[in-house]
Amino acid sequence: MTENGTAVTTSSNSRNVRIEWGDCDPAGIIFYPRYFEIFDSSTAMLFERALGMTKFQMFKTLEFAGFPLVRTRARFLKPTRFGDDVLVESKIACGRSSFDVEHRLSLRGETCAECSEKRVWVVRDADGRLKSHAVPEAVLAKFRG
Amino acid sequence: MTENGTAVTTSSNSRNVRIEWGDCDPAGIIFYPRYFEIFDSSTAMLFERALGMTKFQMFKTLEFAGFPLVRTRARFLKPTRFGDDVLVESKIACGRSSFDVEHRLSLRGETCAECSEKRVWVVRDADGRLKSHAVPEAVLAKFRG
Amino acid sequence: MTENGTAVTTSSNSRNVRIEWGDCDPAGIIFYPRYFEIFDSSTAMLFERALGMTKFQMFKTLEFAGFPLVRTRARFLKPTRFGDDVLVESKIACGRSSFDVEHRLSLRGETCAECSEKRVWVVRDADGRLKSHAVPEAVLAKFRG
Amino acid sequence: MTENGTAVTTSSNSRNVRIEWGDCDPAGIIFYPRYFEIFDSSTAMLFERALGMTKFQMFKTLEFAGFPLVRTRARFLKPTRFGDDVLVESKIACGRSSFDVEHRLSLRGETCAECSEKRVWVVRDADGRLKSHAVPEAVLAKFRG
Repeated sequence: MTENGTAVTTSSNSRNVRIEWGDCDPAGIIFYPRYFEIFDSSTAMLFERALGMTKFQMFKTLEFAGFPLVRTRARFLKPTRFGDDVLVESKIACGRSSFDVEHRLSLRGETCAECSEKRVWVVRDADGRLKSHAVPEAVLAKFRG
Repeated sequence: MTENGTAVTTSSNSRNVRIEWGDCDPAGIIFYPRYFEIFDSSTAMLFERALGMTKFQMFKTLEFAGFPLVRTRARFLKPTRFGDDVLVESKIACGRSSFDVEHRLSLRGETCAECSEKRVWVVRDADGRLKSHAVPEAVLAKFRG
Repeated sequence: MTENGTAVTTSSNSRNVRIEWGDCDPAGIIFYPRYFEIFDSSTAMLFERALGMTKFQMFKTLEFAGFPLVRTRARFLKPTRFGDDVLVESKIACGRSSFDVEHRLSLRGETCAECSEKRVWVVRDADGRLKSHAVPEAVLAKFRG
Repeated sequence: MTENGTAVTTSSNSRNVRIEWGDCDPAGIIFYPRYFEIFDSSTAMLFERALGMTKFQMFKTLEFAGFPLVRTRARFLKPTRFGDDVLVESKIACGRSSFDVEHRLSLRGETCAECSEKRVWVVRDADGRLKSHAVPEAVLAKFRG
């Protein structure tokens, strides 16, 4: 159950990511905003896996204008470097109108970074403005598998 | 006159840009894709200066969906580093449906990078697809000053 | 006093930042990893203001290899868009070997994003590896003003 | 033979790249500086394939401080979008102190972008400054296969 009493469905995914030269800073280690780019793509991949469609297709077929971040928290335990092939393991818990996502980025079994995200489902209102909205039941059903 | 016989109007702009730590790579110098981000912003600034509105306002008030790049060419003469305050001088020549933009990025008077761009004015067709379009006369008039 | 009993010195800075087209995503709002790039530059600016030298000069003149992030936390309250000129207000509290930084990003007085960072001072050990180190007294003295 | 009479050795590589949400701009298409990030990684991959080591390992084992770009030229023929899985085919021709690299990025067989690069091999001089240098014979031998 979530904080507001909604049954939660969870799903997970893992993928390999190469840390690139251009992701790294003059200290030779990853520039940490690049981690958030990696985590954002991992979150998109969770939806793609569960729904069987890309985020682009979600825009075409669902009442959907994105799943923007409301808050995030991250810890950086060990730096990574260009040429490192890291593993990103991600897990999502879906509530009625928001999602909790956890990412763990590791190198050869050692955790390098951890991140948690709170995201909301948004749609466009009549004026084209983004507003939070309940997650469509069809989407929740997919996450339930 | 342009290659296709159209009278051309030109406009210019210059701005100072700080090269940031996160723009630089493990060699300690700017990662060159960051130059293209800087040049793209400088091109937007040329339009903002000429039209008296931001690119965001252009979307609201003009038949306009962007000025995407068709081709570019750049030379990198001297590297720049985090903490460098560089000068970016930009010049635009507007034809009927395309723009030629030249950027020169310099540090203390020495040219570090040069770039030229060919861009087109695009609008959305009935299906929402981007297509090239003649530059509105009102826009050309603004560039003529 | 900090959690571990060290007297803390604080310093602050504010700067204006233009949100650029290339910072924004297909929803038309800023792609949130760009906020972390902005905050990282604001943190560097806090040091530059206090020490009277750029981060580049810090590498040249101090026993210093960076001030990497150990953990961060951010909240995103209202989206910003290309063309927005936002204000970033930053505040640093320096302990003996770590820093707590707070950023507030606002548009026309309304808070859009908030971020807190824990960073450490690092140096290179004999093998060239990054390791945490006490902040030099000369640096702390500058923050004390 | 190159322009300066040196026998040239060539090598090629291709890889699949997912265009991500965060690579795209408010027009919904890739923000073109991201193409240069992709091409830079593809060039690094050409070296990794030929030499059997990552760029990080090149720094450790060779007299090497990077292969910075001297000039580049690119054409953008069709836009790509988030969720597109593109193919990047790259080809390198190695001269005595410089490299010519060609990239072709395509989607379902259609060319979307083309790029050519001129890069040089650089080392650090006694003062730590980057300077151009002949490519080590051992490296050229690897490219000759």
